[in-house]
Amino acid sequence: MKNFVYNIPTKVYFGKDQLCHLAESLSVYGKRVLLTYGGGSIKKVGLYDTVMKELNAGGFQVFELSGIEPNPRIDSVRKGAQLCKDENIDVILAVGGGSTLDASKWMAAGACVDHDPWDFFQSPRKPLNGALPLVTILTLSATGSEMDGGGVISNPETNDKMGRMEDILYPRVSFLDPCNTFTVSPYQTACGAADILSHIIEEYFNAEEGNLFMIDSIMEALMKTVVKYAPIALAQPDNYEARANLMWASSWAINGFIKAGKTTAWSCHPMEHQLSAYYDITHGLGLAILTPRWMKHCMKALPETTQKFAEFAVNVFDVDKNLPAAEAALAGVAALEKFLFEDLKLTSNLTDLNIGREHFADMAQKAVEGGTMKAYVALSSDDVADIYEACL
Amino acid sequence: MKNFVYNIPTKVYFGKDQLCHLAESLSVYGKRVLLTYGGGSIKKVGLYDTVMKELNAGGFQVFELSGIEPNPRIDSVRKGAQLCKDENIDVILAVGGGSTLDASKWMAAGACVDHDPWDFFQSPRKPLNGALPLVTILTLSATGSEMDGGGVISNPETNDKMGRMEDILYPRVSFLDPCNTFTVSPYQTACGAADILSHIIEEYFNAEEGNLFMIDSIMEALMKTVVKYAPIALAQPDNYEARANLMWASSWAINGFIKAGKTTAWSCHPMEHQLSAYYDITHGLGLAILTPRWMKHCMKALPETTQKFAEFAVNVFDVDKNLPAAEAALAGVAALEKFLFEDLKLTSNLTDLNIGREHFADMAQKAVEGGTMKAYVALSSDDVADIYEACL
Repeated sequence: MKNFVYNIPTKVYFGKDQLCHLAESLSVYGKRVLLTYGGGSIKKVGLYDTVMKELNAGGFQVFELSGIEPNPRIDSVRKGAQLCKDENIDVILAVGGGSTLDASKWMAAGACVDHDPWDFFQSPRKPLNGALPLVTILTLSATGSEMDGGGVISNPETNDKMGRMEDILYPRVSFLDPCNTFTVSPYQTACGAADILSHIIEEYFNAEEGNLFMIDSIMEALMKTVVKYAPIALAQPDNYEARANLMWASSWAINGFIKAGKTTAWSCHPMEHQLSAYYDITHGLGLAILTPRWMKHCMKALPETTQKFAEFAVNVFDVDKNLPAAEAALAGVAALEKFLFEDLKLTSNLTDLNIGREHFADMAQKAVEGGTMKAYVALSSDDVADIYEACL
Repeated sequence: MKNFVYNIPTKVYFGKDQLCHLAESLSVYGKRVLLTYGGGSIKKVGLYDTVMKELNAGGFQVFELSGIEPNPRIDSVRKGAQLCKDENIDVILAVGGGSTLDASKWMAAGACVDHDPWDFFQSPRKPLNGALPLVTILTLSATGSEMDGGGVISNPETNDKMGRMEDILYPRVSFLDPCNTFTVSPYQTACGAADILSHIIEEYFNAEEGNLFMIDSIMEALMKTVVKYAPIALAQPDNYEARANLMWASSWAINGFIKAGKTTAWSCHPMEHQLSAYYDITHGLGLAILTPRWMKHCMKALPETTQKFAEFAVNVFDVDKNLPAAEAALAGVAALEKFLFEDLKLTSNLTDLNIGREHFADMAQKAVEGGTMKAYVALSSDDVADIYEACL
């Protein structure tokens, strides 16, 4: 077990009608607010009006940047950072899902430097020089960006999709109202659930000795929560209990708590980032397609991992604990496939998304960054290409 | 499900040899440090010397207050608050278990007012007027004081033992090194484990509709952690994995996370506070004796609680889920008794502690504060007296 530092400073207002605390949360930082959001769905559902009412009543001067795209692009970040500089912004208020929040974090950092924000991602990565404070209102349970210090940005010119975590980028305050996710479509709800589950799986399968049993058990609790409530949210979009469980699980899947004492060694996310960089597919869908294939690859490449996959099967999917490990492990993968592709109705392969093998070799090279991915089971570019191939 | 605010600002350095971060953690607040500790065991084990070395190297001016007793007394708080005022202390460094940390919190608050610190506890309770910053080094896994804003103080003159939580009393930084608990005796380890378990049980059994399944599952994970590792720590005092799991579980049992969305309605703690106020017994021991009797009382007084006790039995003690609820629930209580009184070797009744029934009526009145305790199952003073009686 490794030493760790636990430091999650984000304050969360969870539940209905908490935006009465919005003005007090922002005004600590000043009166000039940059309001960021995506394609305008927040206007359709009335959230924009609610937010503006609070901002106007609080006497804030509001600047807006809308149109932040899914898989947010460096151009949006550039625009936002420039706007912050030009308008002398005090605090950014991001209203949306992970894409809007991620982009806003890097606007906050970009506002404090003179160089191009893409330099934060290109090797050698430029250090941050502070960041504007960020407050968020979450509308999609998925990426956990509302309670972490990370953001993933795409550069379509280079087919790059790059993530980076920095403590200074944790939102100061996040508003999590499950009602704001009632209008999320079944498809996006399913992709979000797959993303949450993947964040936990990436940490749960970990090669290090002496993991904290407590944290492993908590990860199982989080995974069971997603498996239980995602299908309910699909069937009953305005089920508060289901939306609340998914929303709080999304935050705790990736805010740093569950990686206590471990070296982070993710597998599916680096592989998926290439998929969505090349084909702009929804991140959670890419993860759903990749994860079961990756699991099978692990057990084949390194049979001693079977035991952990059997634990996963028993503790998350209630597979019979008396089965031999290899059998239980495979039953777990099958249960995961049933969850993702039947219960959540996600497309189960790349072929159905019109994705072929033409870029697999390049994507695999990028995923392993030209070397070997030091993940749960180390992955060469050939391994990654094989896993992509199994996804067809 | 109720709305909630999540706000745990404590930064935690977890693991071995993290005190290299002590000076940087303190110096944010100033150079005049009040070092508080208990009976001197930190000198025996060398921790005092390690701490002083860091403080001297960091150029701090150190004032000391030692001798803080178990079930810490208001006189120690008074002394500490006065010392803070007299010596113009910038930050308090508490080294010890829950007693030292609790007392130090109220010294920190007492340093900022002119009145007697006991006025924080007497009705009508005086408001806080700020608090000096507090940094802690934990030496006992039990109360969770290292990551919460609460402290319990005893007044032997009035047989009162009173607790109070305030956000401003969260430690700014806590150092959690499992090695610092290697020398904790089996008895104190067992009492600490019973205390941690009780903190979770108090939240787990909750009468409100629509609890967050996610949080209930996490509570089960925390309880399983205590049940698994406390006996290992008793048998192998220097088992790092066991000590680490107990230590991190102690913090998360009571830092506010698991009460998300609930109204706090504790039962055993108010009953135990009277026991240790009258007889100065170890808090965790009192909780261990009371808890199984309280469980039986609940099921008898309000049979519809049986279902939840059955879930507890199945999910924490691995009782057969196919048993009828009433049977499973009783098997769960029996498993808890076996854990507390056989595995942890704690005394199972008050008679063996030479405690008789002479004060039960008064203690019961105080526990329900002259009315009815609005707990999981509402408790009158007669109910509480019956539960005490069952503990003989």
